[in-house]
Amino acid sequence: MTLIKITLVQLDNYGPWTEELGEDREADIQVLQSELYADLQRMFSAKGGLLFFTRFDNMLAVSNGINLKEHEVILRSIARRYPVTVSMGVGLGETAYEAQRTATRVLQSKGSAQSSERRAVLAYSDNGAKEGYVQIAHIDVDDFTSNVTDREDAYKAMYIISNLSTLLMKLSMNKGALTFFNGGDNFISVCNGLTEYDFKEIIDRLETSVGLKLKAGVGFGRNANEAMSKANKALSKIRRGLVREPVLFLGGPHE
Amino acid sequence: MTLIKITLVQLDNYGPWTEELGEDREADIQVLQSELYADLQRMFSAKGGLLFFTRFDNMLAVSNGINLKEHEVILRSIARRYPVTVSMGVGLGETAYEAQRTATRVLQSKGSAQSSERRAVLAYSDNGAKEGYVQIAHIDVDDFTSNVTDREDAYKAMYIISNLSTLLMKLSMNKGALTFFNGGDNFISVCNGLTEYDFKEIIDRLETSVGLKLKAGVGFGRNANEAMSKANKALSKIRRGLVREPVLFLGGPHE
Amino acid sequence: MTLIKITLVQLDNYGPWTEELGEDREADIQVLQSELYADLQRMFSAKGGLLFFTRFDNMLAVSNGINLKEHEVILRSIARRYPVTVSMGVGLGETAYEAQRTATRVLQSKGSAQSSERRAVLAYSDNGAKEGYVQIAHIDVDDFTSNVTDREDAYKAMYIISNLSTLLMKLSMNKGALTFFNGGDNFISVCNGLTEYDFKEIIDRLETSVGLKLKAGVGFGRNANEAMSKANKALSKIRRGLVREPVLFLGGPHE
Amino acid sequence: MTLIKITLVQLDNYGPWTEELGEDREADIQVLQSELYADLQRMFSAKGGLLFFTRFDNMLAVSNGINLKEHEVILRSIARRYPVTVSMGVGLGETAYEAQRTATRVLQSKGSAQSSERRAVLAYSDNGAKEGYVQIAHIDVDDFTSNVTDREDAYKAMYIISNLSTLLMKLSMNKGALTFFNGGDNFISVCNGLTEYDFKEIIDRLETSVGLKLKAGVGFGRNANEAMSKANKALSKIRRGLVREPVLFLGGPHE
Repeated sequence: MTLIKITLVQLDNYGPWTEELGEDREADIQVLQSELYADLQRMFSAKGGLLFFTRFDNMLAVSNGINLKEHEVILRSIARRYPVTVSMGVGLGETAYEAQRTATRVLQSKGSAQSSERRAVLAYSDNGAKEGYVQIAHIDVDDFTSNVTDREDAYKAMYIISNLSTLLMKLSMNKGALTFFNGGDNFISVCNGLTEYDFKEIIDRLETSVGLKLKAGVGFGRNANEAMSKANKALSKIRRGLVREPVLFLGGPHE
Repeated sequence: MTLIKITLVQLDNYGPWTEELGEDREADIQVLQSELYADLQRMFSAKGGLLFFTRFDNMLAVSNGINLKEHEVILRSIARRYPVTVSMGVGLGETAYEAQRTATRVLQSKGSAQSSERRAVLAYSDNGAKEGYVQIAHIDVDDFTSNVTDREDAYKAMYIISNLSTLLMKLSMNKGALTFFNGGDNFISVCNGLTEYDFKEIIDRLETSVGLKLKAGVGFGRNANEAMSKANKALSKIRRGLVREPVLFLGGPHE
Repeated sequence: MTLIKITLVQLDNYGPWTEELGEDREADIQVLQSELYADLQRMFSAKGGLLFFTRFDNMLAVSNGINLKEHEVILRSIARRYPVTVSMGVGLGETAYEAQRTATRVLQSKGSAQSSERRAVLAYSDNGAKEGYVQIAHIDVDDFTSNVTDREDAYKAMYIISNLSTLLMKLSMNKGALTFFNGGDNFISVCNGLTEYDFKEIIDRLETSVGLKLKAGVGFGRNANEAMSKANKALSKIRRGLVREPVLFLGGPHE
Repeated sequence: MTLIKITLVQLDNYGPWTEELGEDREADIQVLQSELYADLQRMFSAKGGLLFFTRFDNMLAVSNGINLKEHEVILRSIARRYPVTVSMGVGLGETAYEAQRTATRVLQSKGSAQSSERRAVLAYSDNGAKEGYVQIAHIDVDDFTSNVTDREDAYKAMYIISNLSTLLMKLSMNKGALTFFNGGDNFISVCNGLTEYDFKEIIDRLETSVGLKLKAGVGFGRNANEAMSKANKALSKIRRGLVREPVLFLGGPHE
């Protein structure tokens, strides 16, 4: 078994806390959320992981190679430096979707996201399963700058990406993958188990439904950083025209 | 004429630049983008504005009350502290949608987002029009934590919000408003000119189509901070059950 | 009367709080302190002020032009985003030294820096006095890089600067000025009332006692930012050899 | 041989660069320097190291346990996210002072701190020596808050600490140790090889010369984080009155 590990990072009792901050709080909240994400990203990536901002009060990380003690160090560092704490659930799965579901379940079992009692909890279910590899795709849209950013208005461009993102999320989920928007016209898919055929099917369906051509570089590694680096390498080959197909796999799980 | 002012903040030649950073760049890019947004948010909000992260390489701000010189100070501060520069387009409009379209057009006229020559440009069209007021709605979902966050898995919850966000964007755009996801189950709509009836229509349509009940507090002000604060006050009244309707307007444009 | 305004920013009950953070806290504390300083610097400078990190748990700002309401906004923004709060004392004086003494006294009267009860207090004594101008000097050491940084070891270079800094502080205080190290071989002196003769005397004494040649550009303005900008302009002229003297005043208080 | 490893982090061509930023640059420079330090501190401490801000354009880190590849990752992460690059020199020594001297020498051999050609260099001399342990002291002043912070004015308190810091640096250097101010009334001494007698001598001399009573908790570890944690534990015992002497060593190099 070659399992992927996902960590759910959830702010403790965040909603009720924000409401106590006064009515002119919004900019401070936005700064807090972004700084917190950047801070956690630094700490997860220093250990080879990769964190997605998701809904900001709930974030998902690929955490293969990061043990429980290292999770606790991250959790305590946040508790020391922010007015809010985070709790974490850690899950393993054959697919990224399963892993995040397990991560969610173990954390939910420790109390509500709006419990005033749950603080800085690290939850996991240790069934002795072993971590395996991570598979990641870096996906972008062909010529988005020239076709959209430089032509359409900024909000329309954002809407096109948001719509695409929602569709990508749905198609990914159906295959057990988790796809995240990561800025511009870029998406990262945590996609253990997906084949080239899976990606071509997703890309075909999106071209048909929204008229945007996507391409995807796919990489494998022992942790998120390794897999992501190879995905970037693969996507770069497609961008430079070195391959004709819109999907390129570099390596595989048994490498 | 009571116009709203929107600023488009666009990273200069960002995509090509990121590709030169090496294949293990992703975490650094995510940290950079979040820090840059937090930084710009601090500077816009110090002047009464409010910035939305949008696609991160393109951000939109409500900038009533922030003059061109102040825009330039922000623009130069970023140029001094980051390896990338930002350019800005500033536009006025009767609706937020129109204002961002103007902001986009004036910036597009200065060169492509991927031009290697456009750097730290401030673009605007001065037709002598006067800034007026800002209208903002703070929208959230009823009982999202208990119904979704505490029950569904984290990615499913994110998908539900992403889908809702895309629908809200479309319905807003049709009415000339700009709606942005701002974390958790919260949305901010920059909505000059929209009536209570408009909001009830949007809320009804979303309840029908996706089964989620929304509520909206709406405020007005001379700048984003004032309008947002009143929107928070209005939403708080609904949350505490002080009003029965899911939409509450506090004040109006002529206050 | 042309008074300078100084704000003392003091972390509330900081020492006792840090001791509760666990024994592996040091790096987190250093990150927290630096981020907090950077954050406050952004907010003070957005209003034309300038903040010095001083001892990190106590910071001093030149705050001409920043009213009490704006101080409160800064104070609350920190309270929302950090696990510790700051209190502030605001003082006016004919010299910077007097102003900071008044700022200290009014804050001390609200309770000890280690009181567990004093939280996010804004203290000031309003005797109707009016703010005037700010005078600032930018001071550096001739050829420090070639003579010291590139020759001596890094700690020795740091010791030379630390020793120089302590001497500069003492000589400044005796004349009512506040001098702060601000990185490299640079110092900023808040020096309302000091003359060219005062600076030459300080520079002569330091050359005699420690063998380092200093130069100083001095500027005036309605706030710290204006005065600092002119001080930079003046120092730049000396650096480029446009003047022979090691001290250059640009403008004056009545400009 | 049980050597300590020190890394010198030096900004490349920083002074000349800052002068090109415009005359109103000072606040931006201060923010940049603090953010850069906080960022590097996060990255060094994630690997068990500890970084001191020193002169901000030159920083010193205890880097036992951090290999050259990890140094390069840090160096590149900064190059990607800041408008300035850093170079590093790594040195080993029987004392911290010797180690930083070696670190300085290898970096100086790569070019001046103000060379426009040296960019993001990692310099080291590999003579096959092995890293050993780290010894760190956490030092503070008895009752500084009640005796000074709550009584004297803020600048006077800062002067007292600056003077103490300079004296501590000199006494430390003479014994091969590096002592750094780290906020408030706290100092950290990287002090491989120093005995209890050494610390008592330093403390006695300072009490005689400046009338301040110091105490020091001393710890040992395979890296800075371990040694610092034990130093905190030792100091905490003194603070709580569990030992009578002002110096407490916990463990030793051979632990």
